[in-house]
Amino acid sequence: MEYFSEKAAQNLAALRDKKPLIHTITNYVTMNFVANALLAMGASPVMAHCDAEVEEIVSSADALVLNIGTLNKEWMPGMIAAGKKATTHKKPIVVDPVGCGATKHRTRFAQKIIAETKPAVIRGNPSEILSLEHPDFKTRGVDSVHPVEEAAAPAQRLAGHLGITLAITGAFDWITDGKRGVRVENGHPLMGRVTGTGCAATAVIAAFLAIDDDPLSAASTAMAFLGLAGEVAGKKASAPGSFMIEMLNALYTITPDALKDGCKIEE
Amino acid sequence: MEYFSEKAAQNLAALRDKKPLIHTITNYVTMNFVANALLAMGASPVMAHCDAEVEEIVSSADALVLNIGTLNKEWMPGMIAAGKKATTHKKPIVVDPVGCGATKHRTRFAQKIIAETKPAVIRGNPSEILSLEHPDFKTRGVDSVHPVEEAAAPAQRLAGHLGITLAITGAFDWITDGKRGVRVENGHPLMGRVTGTGCAATAVIAAFLAIDDDPLSAASTAMAFLGLAGEVAGKKASAPGSFMIEMLNALYTITPDALKDGCKIEE
Amino acid sequence: MEYFSEKAAQNLAALRDKKPLIHTITNYVTMNFVANALLAMGASPVMAHCDAEVEEIVSSADALVLNIGTLNKEWMPGMIAAGKKATTHKKPIVVDPVGCGATKHRTRFAQKIIAETKPAVIRGNPSEILSLEHPDFKTRGVDSVHPVEEAAAPAQRLAGHLGITLAITGAFDWITDGKRGVRVENGHPLMGRVTGTGCAATAVIAAFLAIDDDPLSAASTAMAFLGLAGEVAGKKASAPGSFMIEMLNALYTITPDALKDGCKIEE
Repeated sequence: MEYFSEKAAQNLAALRDKKPLIHTITNYVTMNFVANALLAMGASPVMAHCDAEVEEIVSSADALVLNIGTLNKEWMPGMIAAGKKATTHKKPIVVDPVGCGATKHRTRFAQKIIAETKPAVIRGNPSEILSLEHPDFKTRGVDSVHPVEEAAAPAQRLAGHLGITLAITGAFDWITDGKRGVRVENGHPLMGRVTGTGCAATAVIAAFLAIDDDPLSAASTAMAFLGLAGEVAGKKASAPGSFMIEMLNALYTITPDALKDGCKIEE
Repeated sequence: MEYFSEKAAQNLAALRDKKPLIHTITNYVTMNFVANALLAMGASPVMAHCDAEVEEIVSSADALVLNIGTLNKEWMPGMIAAGKKATTHKKPIVVDPVGCGATKHRTRFAQKIIAETKPAVIRGNPSEILSLEHPDFKTRGVDSVHPVEEAAAPAQRLAGHLGITLAITGAFDWITDGKRGVRVENGHPLMGRVTGTGCAATAVIAAFLAIDDDPLSAASTAMAFLGLAGEVAGKKASAPGSFMIEMLNALYTITPDALKDGCKIEE
Repeated sequence: MEYFSEKAAQNLAALRDKKPLIHTITNYVTMNFVANALLAMGASPVMAHCDAEVEEIVSSADALVLNIGTLNKEWMPGMIAAGKKATTHKKPIVVDPVGCGATKHRTRFAQKIIAETKPAVIRGNPSEILSLEHPDFKTRGVDSVHPVEEAAAPAQRLAGHLGITLAITGAFDWITDGKRGVRVENGHPLMGRVTGTGCAATAVIAAFLAIDDDPLSAASTAMAFLGLAGEVAGKKASAPGSFMIEMLNALYTITPDALKDGCKIEE
């Protein structure tokens, strides 16, 4: 789709110009990789989770990430407070319901975030998205045990019901706002062998939302960008350690023109 | 020993086939490296520490890691709850008593885990293992100040007394279940210059225990595998940054046959 | 300045010989990179933050890092307890007031650390240092929005007033004890695209303070060393992922003689 290829290039150029500040409340495991991904692509990450300061941080940020990957009772009030403040200030929020469906604790808290704040986008793997649609749905661990195809129709229903754009990532990515659905074919299998590529996807969506106020377009072009970084990395590296480093390199080196050419988004 | 070489190859092949889910409660410092090591070798990590969800997580996992590297009061109940549930469900547990002997707090909590759960294996450096045997023993920091030789006999006594396999890692590795003792010669000096190679060793043992129900064999073959990854990395890299990345690559690329050939385990 | 070049070489040689133990209470985001930086250069990191054990840890350490990058209510008592104990035992402390000026919470806590402990050095970016001098000063996020030049004179006043050496890092580094001021020209622009180079700077200063009891000289030579590692990395890598890895390599491979030759410190 030429529309999305143009948009992807515009978004990336605008992002590198604006250097948006992304307030990122995320998990311990991938925090470093996510911060490096944001810095490499041209955004500025700020990681702060304490309820004593999140409102002040988010007020000066351009977008907010809420990722429940290592959910902690102490962190929950900070996530909710940051999300409410972002909603009040009309700052876009991206929710990453990591491990949703693996425990009741996570499913409930993901639902609470969605009920009490107004996310622009929810990004998850198929199992996580299915468990948001069906709260009795049970998954295992944080890696998906379902293919994207299985979650596409439920995601479209859920997106329509919630009024929130959903981005499912996997062998391909499927982004839907309930009415429209977009398929992103960019990506590389080694992305599943590096921890934090999902969390980075969420953060990249947040950075694109700081530029592009159409959640479907922001999420799709962000996924194409991250997926293309995976493809570029996959040409240079054939094992996960080097691949991870090459992904960070690619987030820095991919130009808007290269993104326009490499972008595989289909409506 | 041909027995262990065959076993190592079988374990690695079975692990890549089964992709065991490893519930990993570990420290902030090396969580990312440990998750990447597990993913690279073919296992699936899930990091969750909150007492509100650990029982549910561990119930669907294949093995549990309890690593006290950045011990936190808030994390202690989650570790004990996960360990008890794993014990009830007969899921293998590996304990990593990081910094045991450096503070009373750590020595006491390591003893509590051992008393209240039933670990299959404890993996530590010589100083940590010595301080478990002699609670008055005092060490400094988290890097060992004792050679493996000094801890071998105390480890054998302690393993026999506790009925737990002990794995001491250092210039060489020594694994004992109290009766038998096995020496693993695989490894590379640069492993001591990368944070998390010890924590990764513990996680790799957990992944092998998900496949092999003899703790001595699982721990020995796991140590040979990680050590061989160090050797492979050491052929490609001569400084710690590149070495760390090449270790992740090697955990992905080493085949069961290469492990069989490269394995240096002696009874 | 030949004096500082000689001193830098001596400090690095002595550090590799002594392998000082650096008690590092730092943020979740960059903990892994900081630990790897300390290990690569030849120091031994110990990360422990819990008030139940920090006094014991710091008592056997050679220097203490207090970094407020992901400030947590639970971590604050541990930071203060460690700082007080270090002060009593005359162990050098380096404070990194990450995000100071971005929230009142951080500005207040940074001031509390400075009031209740006796740091040898405070290292920050220009915005952070300006907000310490002017508590009403407001900045945004954790990346500086001011050039080093703007913070140099306020830093000199503040250093004189507090009796603490201040190190401002940016396009160049400026270190002052209130009387003297030293400019360090080593560094590379890609350091700003890798998370944790600032936090690593703080930790490297702590390691040099374990060797050199003149804070101005320790901080200046540490900054020259880290900056030279950036320069060496910049010759091998042109994007942030590889650059980060090459920095770790360089911290390991730079010899005292190479540091003497490459050091760019001017009084």
